[in-house]
Amino acid sequence: MKLCELGEKEIVRRLASFLDIGDDAAYIAHGKGFLLMSTDMMYEETHILPGMSYEQVGRFIVSVNASDIAAMGARPIAFLLACGNPPGMEYSDYEAMIRAADGQCRLYGMKFAGGDTKQAGKLTLSGFCVGYAEKPVLRSTAKPGDLVAVTGCLGDASLGADILLKGLTHPKAGPAIKKALEPSARVDAGLALGRYATAMTDISDSLAISLHDIAKMSGVAVKLYSEKIPLSDSSVRVARGLGLDIMDYALYGGADYELLFSVRPEDFGKVGSKVDATVIGEVSFGCGVSCVAGKKEHVLENRGFEHFKKPAQKLNKRG
Amino acid sequence: MKLCELGEKEIVRRLASFLDIGDDAAYIAHGKGFLLMSTDMMYEETHILPGMSYEQVGRFIVSVNASDIAAMGARPIAFLLACGNPPGMEYSDYEAMIRAADGQCRLYGMKFAGGDTKQAGKLTLSGFCVGYAEKPVLRSTAKPGDLVAVTGCLGDASLGADILLKGLTHPKAGPAIKKALEPSARVDAGLALGRYATAMTDISDSLAISLHDIAKMSGVAVKLYSEKIPLSDSSVRVARGLGLDIMDYALYGGADYELLFSVRPEDFGKVGSKVDATVIGEVSFGCGVSCVAGKKEHVLENRGFEHFKKPAQKLNKRG
Repeated sequence: MKLCELGEKEIVRRLASFLDIGDDAAYIAHGKGFLLMSTDMMYEETHILPGMSYEQVGRFIVSVNASDIAAMGARPIAFLLACGNPPGMEYSDYEAMIRAADGQCRLYGMKFAGGDTKQAGKLTLSGFCVGYAEKPVLRSTAKPGDLVAVTGCLGDASLGADILLKGLTHPKAGPAIKKALEPSARVDAGLALGRYATAMTDISDSLAISLHDIAKMSGVAVKLYSEKIPLSDSSVRVARGLGLDIMDYALYGGADYELLFSVRPEDFGKVGSKVDATVIGEVSFGCGVSCVAGKKEHVLENRGFEHFKKPAQKLNKRG
Repeated sequence: MKLCELGEKEIVRRLASFLDIGDDAAYIAHGKGFLLMSTDMMYEETHILPGMSYEQVGRFIVSVNASDIAAMGARPIAFLLACGNPPGMEYSDYEAMIRAADGQCRLYGMKFAGGDTKQAGKLTLSGFCVGYAEKPVLRSTAKPGDLVAVTGCLGDASLGADILLKGLTHPKAGPAIKKALEPSARVDAGLALGRYATAMTDISDSLAISLHDIAKMSGVAVKLYSEKIPLSDSSVRVARGLGLDIMDYALYGGADYELLFSVRPEDFGKVGSKVDATVIGEVSFGCGVSCVAGKKEHVLENRGFEHFKKPAQKLNKRG
């Protein structure tokens, strides 16, 4: 069986039968707490959006890795970058990318600690982030009765990416495009949520996939109220203007790098004062993820952006 | 200026003007000691030797990363692997590679903690290793009066690689080829040396480059007695039989992943009982690296395998 016939999720599921994997970041006990480690790759061919600058590439690879640490309620402390660069790449572009990555690390309070530089046919970046938490927040510990909430607004980044990939134009598309090109890791929110969230993950693939991950790994059912999903006014308008459905992006688009978490109802108020979070659903006994829209309830499809399933697909091009 | 016009060493030298880099692994203070972090990439096009199996690829990426941690006198504790895989790769090959990497991690006493799986045109592996040391051993702390020593034998791996790359045959070439395809990280030696070595690095690029690195970063002169370089009998014979010069491999070939270290003369005896090490030189006031062969002394060329300098060069194909 070839990897492209299996898809990323099935590959990871098979690996999980003999490896201890499944959360946003790996963790091991160290000292009085836990070390968290994450790695995320970017390829010129499949991950770099049209018009992305080298500075944006540098910031992007730091943010997506820091997001995995934030999603465990941990503090990122150091970042390494392994770069495969085409031999014809200009040094000035390379330095601009590294300086931007270094700056983004400082923004998240961690050290750009070095890396590796090799020659490759196409630009290839592997980021590696180390963090620390007294107690990491897992995906597998949501409890019936918990609320399900999300930080920020959803759908902006994948709408922006789709606009870039399809070559669309809209006078108000700037903020969505910016979120696609320059996502932020919710480091401060992750740290604040670390004390209260019962389970957590970042939304890198899609809200749907992240909800299914938490439901499956926690052995619970999740009900999503789609009308409660926080959307930005500007993306709602841009999508409408372009004849696109913003809900499709919010549910299945991914790349927002917001945090999805479960929390006990009595703790949500404590979270709310520190983090811009919105309750979008609830956890109950059972399994699976359902989506309530108005008076209708249906099973939420477990789909989003996934590697391997479709050769040569582009970031956030929805299936 | 393009990266291929600069070469890896010059690129790293330029980055070092604004980043804190220069040792085998990055380190940051954590708890009562230091966290060590290393990353090393492998590409199908430039790093995978003819005839290398997927299992060997899996072990290789773990060993070269663990070697960087060992070279700091630290204990490797966790490993992550970011894989870019061609979509047409067989899952069974992929799983064999991951299982072999997991097994090699256990051999070094560390946890295979997970990673990332993405689609790429060519097989691309980025390994990340985290270690811990009470006090890491740097390259920059050799002192005049120290002895210079090396673990194991040198030249085997690059001789073996060259035999594979040139398609040569020799009935006794097995051990050299095995060292090229399956290098070991000197984890136990690194830990034992951590208490005594005044400076240390692994020999990944070449002995010559590693000696120059220690001399330059420590602000000292190093004298190498080339006749003292430990060589394996079998590689000496194989090289002679093929009309090749084993000293050329030992000095400039690299890929042995042995440890090069400086140590105070009164401490070498303590090291010797725990580690298979050979004194090959000495540190003095001054700068640069000289090589004494018989009664002749000459400046040792600072060369070996270096990325970027020559597009499409192969692993260990000497310049």
